[in-house]
Amino acid sequence: MLPVAVDAMGGDHAPEAIVAGAALAVRDGIDVILVGDRDVLAPLLPRTHAPRVVHAGDVVDMGETAAGVRRKPDASVRRAMSLVQAGDACAALSFGNTGATFVAACLDLGVFEGVERPGIATVLPRSDGGRLVMLDAGANVDCRPEQLACFARLGAVYAEVLGVERPRIGLLSNGEEDSKGNMQVRATLPLLRSLPLEVVGHVEPHHAMAGACDVLVCDGFVGNILLKAAEGAVSTVVQLLTEEVSRRPSGRLGAWLLKGAFKRFRNRVQWDAQGGALLLGTRGLVVIGHGAAEAEAVRAGVALASRAAQDDLLGALAQGMQEISAEK
Amino acid sequence: MLPVAVDAMGGDHAPEAIVAGAALAVRDGIDVILVGDRDVLAPLLPRTHAPRVVHAGDVVDMGETAAGVRRKPDASVRRAMSLVQAGDACAALSFGNTGATFVAACLDLGVFEGVERPGIATVLPRSDGGRLVMLDAGANVDCRPEQLACFARLGAVYAEVLGVERPRIGLLSNGEEDSKGNMQVRATLPLLRSLPLEVVGHVEPHHAMAGACDVLVCDGFVGNILLKAAEGAVSTVVQLLTEEVSRRPSGRLGAWLLKGAFKRFRNRVQWDAQGGALLLGTRGLVVIGHGAAEAEAVRAGVALASRAAQDDLLGALAQGMQEISAEK
Repeated sequence: MLPVAVDAMGGDHAPEAIVAGAALAVRDGIDVILVGDRDVLAPLLPRTHAPRVVHAGDVVDMGETAAGVRRKPDASVRRAMSLVQAGDACAALSFGNTGATFVAACLDLGVFEGVERPGIATVLPRSDGGRLVMLDAGANVDCRPEQLACFARLGAVYAEVLGVERPRIGLLSNGEEDSKGNMQVRATLPLLRSLPLEVVGHVEPHHAMAGACDVLVCDGFVGNILLKAAEGAVSTVVQLLTEEVSRRPSGRLGAWLLKGAFKRFRNRVQWDAQGGALLLGTRGLVVIGHGAAEAEAVRAGVALASRAAQDDLLGALAQGMQEISAEK
Repeated sequence: MLPVAVDAMGGDHAPEAIVAGAALAVRDGIDVILVGDRDVLAPLLPRTHAPRVVHAGDVVDMGETAAGVRRKPDASVRRAMSLVQAGDACAALSFGNTGATFVAACLDLGVFEGVERPGIATVLPRSDGGRLVMLDAGANVDCRPEQLACFARLGAVYAEVLGVERPRIGLLSNGEEDSKGNMQVRATLPLLRSLPLEVVGHVEPHHAMAGACDVLVCDGFVGNILLKAAEGAVSTVVQLLTEEVSRRPSGRLGAWLLKGAFKRFRNRVQWDAQGGALLLGTRGLVVIGHGAAEAEAVRAGVALASRAAQDDLLGALAQGMQEISAEK
């Protein structure tokens, strides 16, 4: 297995939390390369289980524009992509500016034929025990129908790699009927139906979370709203429960007993607990890490990248995109 | 107090559930007029606490177009609006086709000056104990910035009537910075800032639910997705908890003790438990009921309409829209 290239300089708690998380991943048996300023990173490395360091002389700032990223080939996030491009790493991971990571991935890795812009795929728990692949989770705020159709293709392959046979594709909407949805969604449905995929049609968020589909397609604005609404609702439930518990002392035992289920759900819903989400569509594996990641989230992000490489997600995506194009 | 006019012919469980719910509301001390086919309704009326009946010879079907609603002045939903328009009812309530109710309200009641299309306002619980007025919750799927600005004005007045002084207006977005959002949202922010309102800027759903604003403005497509995502997340939590409980028998006591908090949250999140949501912008109070409403939800919808009338929400909206226009 090739190592995972981790941009050590991006993220709210970089570089300390990135180094600490990478060291935890190494301890887990995953080979990691930290990419960043070697003078900054050297003193932070642990004595044992220290990841290797590849030097990068520049960094991308939080407010960096796409043009800025383009002008900085030596920035840590771009060096991480280059390692993947050169075949020296199996995947790249950055906790910095999402937009910059996106641009760097497109620049240095390129995209598959038929992909205009990659999408961020998040995996959500379903109440029927299954998993819901949702994309785009935030990379592309205004999407044309063709882009949404592309997300459907990428998401279908990802769901297959996760073990779903003939995944059912749903188009996120405000009602089940074909007449529902906004202009964007209504224009997308016929396009989805023209693909050699199992398309169930418009799917509402609560039905998707209950198992109505395996892949939920939406633009990055709405997808991001969906994720954060789910997160907010769960937090509110936890808050209400906490209040209820403090009201009745006898409730404490119950709350304690049920803590595990809550934690499990939050872990599965929250990006930072999963460490990040996969960017699908680039010719190389990329994980977009959560900016607020602490060491444990960094460790989880590295594990996500490593698992995707082990499952040969990239190969499946390359083949899947080709097959669909051929079938069409 | 004038009676609430309830369309007895609309809804998945009409007319039985509507009549039963209306009778419960009468028992609660609210004056109700049922509008519908008197021959159909008469045998359903209870011996005591029977609501009055006003005959309507026609009904609106689920698939009715706007033109169809226009051609049916004698449809029950339109007769209900006419009662409000004539000053014979304080509010109208229908559990039928949302689009048809919307069209009937605009046709028979008209809209305030400065309002192009009314919006559906939902009230969500916040984890800080406050309430979040969100609109539009589903009436208008594609909105121009001017329409969103109008929702901000209507929502601000509603929040004031609910007891919030100088409500803070948030624009639903995928990030806090002004640079976030899709094209629609970015075009709306300067417009909101030009209004004499307390505008906090872009607000993410989980922050809004935690108290970052009192009014959350969005188009009806995204707003509907937000509501149903929150509902789906809560259902998934409940499902996970149920599984956890069945796994450990000792957990049953805890789950039982915490049942109340869940129920309370679900009641506050789910439309059908609130009975419906207010349509804001029409020159008469209208509640859009949930199509799946059973008797209890109908009772709650009547209570919501009656409370809005008691609080003189309509007067406040009329005055508020005028003041804002004048200040501007």
